[in-house]
Amino acid sequence: DSQQLVADMSDPYSTDPQRHAALKPASVKPFNAETPPFLLVEQFITPNELFYVRNHLPVPQVDPETYELEVEVEGRKKCLVLTLDEIKKLPRHTITATIMCAGNRRSEMVKVKPVKGLNWGAAAVGTATWTGVRLRDVLIKLGVDEDDKKLKHVQFEGLDFDPTGKTYGASVPLWKAMSKRGDVILAYEMNGEAIPRDHGFPIRVIVPGVVGARNVKWLGRIVVSENESDSHWQQNDYKGFSPSTDWDTVDFTKSPAIQELPVISAICKPSEGEKVKVEDGHIVVKGYAWSGGGQKIARVDVTADGGSTWFVANLDHQDSAEPPQHWSWTLWSARIPIPSGTKQVELWAKAVDSCYNTQPETFKNIWNLRGVLSNAYHRIKIKLV
Amino acid sequence: DSQQLVADMSDPYSTDPQRHAALKPASVKPFNAETPPFLLVEQFITPNELFYVRNHLPVPQVDPETYELEVEVEGRKKCLVLTLDEIKKLPRHTITATIMCAGNRRSEMVKVKPVKGLNWGAAAVGTATWTGVRLRDVLIKLGVDEDDKKLKHVQFEGLDFDPTGKTYGASVPLWKAMSKRGDVILAYEMNGEAIPRDHGFPIRVIVPGVVGARNVKWLGRIVVSENESDSHWQQNDYKGFSPSTDWDTVDFTKSPAIQELPVISAICKPSEGEKVKVEDGHIVVKGYAWSGGGQKIARVDVTADGGSTWFVANLDHQDSAEPPQHWSWTLWSARIPIPSGTKQVELWAKAVDSCYNTQPETFKNIWNLRGVLSNAYHRIKIKLV
Ligand SMILES: [Mo]
Ligand SMILES: [Mo]
Repeated sequence: DSQQLVADMSDPYSTDPQRHAALKPASVKPFNAETPPFLLVEQFITPNELFYVRNHLPVPQVDPETYELEVEVEGRKKCLVLTLDEIKKLPRHTITATIMCAGNRRSEMVKVKPVKGLNWGAAAVGTATWTGVRLRDVLIKLGVDEDDKKLKHVQFEGLDFDPTGKTYGASVPLWKAMSKRGDVILAYEMNGEAIPRDHGFPIRVIVPGVVGARNVKWLGRIVVSENESDSHWQQNDYKGFSPSTDWDTVDFTKSPAIQELPVISAICKPSEGEKVKVEDGHIVVKGYAWSGGGQKIARVDVTADGGSTWFVANLDHQDSAEPPQHWSWTLWSARIPIPSGTKQVELWAKAVDSCYNTQPETFKNIWNLRGVLSNAYHRIKIKLV
Repeated sequence: DSQQLVADMSDPYSTDPQRHAALKPASVKPFNAETPPFLLVEQFITPNELFYVRNHLPVPQVDPETYELEVEVEGRKKCLVLTLDEIKKLPRHTITATIMCAGNRRSEMVKVKPVKGLNWGAAAVGTATWTGVRLRDVLIKLGVDEDDKKLKHVQFEGLDFDPTGKTYGASVPLWKAMSKRGDVILAYEMNGEAIPRDHGFPIRVIVPGVVGARNVKWLGRIVVSENESDSHWQQNDYKGFSPSTDWDTVDFTKSPAIQELPVISAICKPSEGEKVKVEDGHIVVKGYAWSGGGQKIARVDVTADGGSTWFVANLDHQDSAEPPQHWSWTLWSARIPIPSGTKQVELWAKAVDSCYNTQPETFKNIWNLRGVLSNAYHRIKIKLV
């Protein structure tokens, strides 16, 4: 295609795919971009071309005809090498799952104090149906025992690489991969189509309920191991710290790698600063809420008066899966009464999940130097007309 | 014993057991009492006689010689009837698990606005080793299939009953009972002794990671069902609501029954109002932290200046179990510097779990009419000498 014709050997990003014009870039090389928030809550399933993109490296060019996935257990001779056709012949499994970037909503945390990371708004998140094969089935075929006392982690390597040849990598706990209720899949379809290049063509591992960073794209190799991935992104990134930990005192070995994400919500419509028309003394507020680890959203509360009165939002779209296998977000709306003559209000939203975990109130006390896990109440100011 | 001699037929509580004098009662009939907080953090395993007691009804007198546990599937003829000896002959399984009352720390939430419920401090919680048989093993014996599409819940009935003859009851999801990683046990030992009468003699179901109310004592009957328990405590109690929901507007069908509890922490030493000696410019603060659902505590932060500076606590005692099977609390301590001349400080503690869920800052926005899930930052004022 035209992209290939202009490939520039000095720029590894020159062969990246075309992107939809509506995506709002947070960085261009590597390409990172989010959905406009008002479009995000238009539908339960995010269209592929509007799904947020979080790439750490150039998008690799993978030939599906010659693609091979290596699957092995560290220190054992037996391994599997699967072509795309062989993978597609294994039993199909489809799940609907939300994927979210650890840095979603970082731009709000930054207001407390600067952090290192892409300046994501509230839309580094999306929901899709993913079809592929259960990782569990593949690992059982390889002879992995779910109760193995030594093996603890499943490492994933992408086919994307940096200028030194180092590939992207991450790992998840073995129990998650082997559990019947874990629903980890090697996906080759996203919303009924071949996974687009930006989302991991031809295979992306989908680890539902777990941070996007472990849902490795362009999957090339799987290694079952006693240890976590030794990649930068597993060891020295994507971890939370105390608000008083700075770059001089941080010790990345002291915090666990982020896996299942905490409960979060965001208002997507209206947006910060928007002029909203009051109708019949009310405004309508729409957003999403989600919790990692297969937890379901139990309630979303919205206030327009700093928490003196909370309105319980209507959960407009929520799939029927029960926790701990509820992988998708909840789309919600609330009709909020506005006293006549009010010129502006600040709206707050917070969610509660099926474990009754709830969001922290402010960013001050959850601030961390990488700006991850940015799940405080969402607060926006709007004008009323 | 002497209790039996004075049994008074007009008072169903007259045959309740003797209790340790150190327990601090929240109510006498039924008996509800908590451990003195400073004693709670003296040891990782709470001694039986100091373990908090939460009884809804009189303690039943159960004869271990004639005791029988009924286990059945709703609508099926086959059932199991197990004597205590038969239960003890099944494979033994021991776990260490923290149990907490849904109302723990309610006395702090009450300060926002009154609620209905016992006025618990921060010590309606304890940790014990529990030995018994896996509920999973018993249900498999009964022919229950973990992947059954119809059966969803396991109901428990106690042998304790109210004046109308109605027994205490609760249920948990079937996946929790059947999961290899669920560790639900029919326990007959607590810290190596027969379970004391106040804690469920001869059998208490231990559902680790799940609110105390579902860990039914004096277990008499187990029913696998499509439905949750229809008991008052499952249907019309032990549920969370929005801060704006009151007794006129509450609809108990709209909230899920509390199961896995959210992350919590408390300062146990010093206590509110205590005079603490500053040594070498520091004070030492001790407490516990815990999270339901098998999550581990990842970090505890303590501040003495309203969150401007957070100190990361030392996790002094934490067992080695990995999430999602980390059932026990973490005991922590922090050495906090005190500027010379300071006469009093307010200490705050908050915990973060292995899903990076954290506690809400204040009670105002998590207030609920039953005063459950009271897990805001723990804040105490102390005097310095
Ligand atoms: Mo991410
Ligand atoms: Mo409770």
